[in-house]
Amino acid sequence: MDSPTPVLGPLLHEGKAKRLYATADARLCAVEFKDTATAANGRHQVYVPGKGRLNCRISSQLFTLLEQGGLPTHFQGLLGDGWMLVRSLRMIPLEVVLRNRAAGSLLRQLPTVAGQPLAPPLLDFYFKDDALGDPFLSEARLAVLNIVTPEERMRLETMARQVNSTLHQALGRIDLDLVDLKLEFGRDHTGQLLLADELSPDNCRLWDQQQHPDSPERILDKDRFRQGLGGLVDAYRTVNQRLQALDLKPRHSDSRVKS
Amino acid sequence: MDSPTPVLGPLLHEGKAKRLYATADARLCAVEFKDTATAANGRHQVYVPGKGRLNCRISSQLFTLLEQGGLPTHFQGLLGDGWMLVRSLRMIPLEVVLRNRAAGSLLRQLPTVAGQPLAPPLLDFYFKDDALGDPFLSEARLAVLNIVTPEERMRLETMARQVNSTLHQALGRIDLDLVDLKLEFGRDHTGQLLLADELSPDNCRLWDQQQHPDSPERILDKDRFRQGLGGLVDAYRTVNQRLQALDLKPRHSDSRVKS
Repeated sequence: MDSPTPVLGPLLHEGKAKRLYATADARLCAVEFKDTATAANGRHQVYVPGKGRLNCRISSQLFTLLEQGGLPTHFQGLLGDGWMLVRSLRMIPLEVVLRNRAAGSLLRQLPTVAGQPLAPPLLDFYFKDDALGDPFLSEARLAVLNIVTPEERMRLETMARQVNSTLHQALGRIDLDLVDLKLEFGRDHTGQLLLADELSPDNCRLWDQQQHPDSPERILDKDRFRQGLGGLVDAYRTVNQRLQALDLKPRHSDSRVKS
Repeated sequence: MDSPTPVLGPLLHEGKAKRLYATADARLCAVEFKDTATAANGRHQVYVPGKGRLNCRISSQLFTLLEQGGLPTHFQGLLGDGWMLVRSLRMIPLEVVLRNRAAGSLLRQLPTVAGQPLAPPLLDFYFKDDALGDPFLSEARLAVLNIVTPEERMRLETMARQVNSTLHQALGRIDLDLVDLKLEFGRDHTGQLLLADELSPDNCRLWDQQQHPDSPERILDKDRFRQGLGGLVDAYRTVNQRLQALDLKPRHSDSRVKS
């Protein structure tokens, strides 16, 4: 899997967990998954060797699963290990969070207990803005922001719910309980909305259904880092190994970024 | 105006700014407006002699204005100075905030500038829960709480917008710009929704249109306390004096609480 680093253009954006590069084709970008873990909006950061490659492999498989289910994503193929080829998108500065169970910040914001099922899954919008601390939005506040039309908002909600139900069902088959997940979307040059960003234990909470509900060992996601439990890479490796059973085969696209 | 303290039953509830007493009539309660000012969810508190009586007078006039406009409220009449007779209600643990301009916490939560008009007025729901810090709610989170039906939520929104537009228009005639206001509602024994709580510069932001927009003297509400500007009682007295021009005549109801 150790393919050579592809031919790249300039660095376009560096986020907390990924770097985005131009390629020889303006419609395509390359994503490098970094070996860093961050929490508390980037205030805590550590180096975690191997995490980037695992997140890239996990994301590639889950994007492939969604594409097979007819859900449009930015995924175009795996490049070298830890690198992914994606469509160039104008990103929408929203985080769309789907919650199948109460966990994380929700426990401090609604009278809920950890693990409490939410049916239908709760859909939360957050405004992606580091300076404001990614504030939670109501529909009315989202309208004030004026970054998506009401029709686009409904399309985002429909797509996010389809992504969640597809992943929830597939992950359940490999004994992974999808507690919640954070999605980001972008528009391609035609204006079509595509799922973007990543699909990994960095932005999904995954609980191991093979472990006792009260055991911290059931946590297979970034909460291991947030809660200081250790074993982050081992947890991500478990997720990646379980995914093999779904026999998803992400395509490889090295040749497409040659200039 | 110094009527004797009415015949009361036991203290039912003490909040940050008011005390609620039973009366001889189970359908009615007496409210005492306290001479305290609080900020930061009660963490800062000072004694402000005269504030309670002013808030009671201002609230009585504004409730009377709304009743004259056909909007149902809990107001039943003035008792002694600083005391109000109200309907007994089962309170709904929501704060309904209407914002005609951006101010306060909104400035830290949306990319807005102080005083920016919001059209239509922005309606925000908050869950009234001190332990959780009165969290902001989306429609979806409000549904999870399951404290109002979808029909009641729509009725609350309609009533809140009517209250806001009636007050905004009337206060504008006396050169007071209603920037935002926080409303609370309750159900009477038949289930009817009524506006409750108070209507005063404690829960409305009021800017003096006779002052320069950049002058701190334009602020005639509790922001004088929150921002350490001083002159709180003078500001509330100004509001009360201006209201005289609207010639509202709150009814007096002393006799109704005699046992």
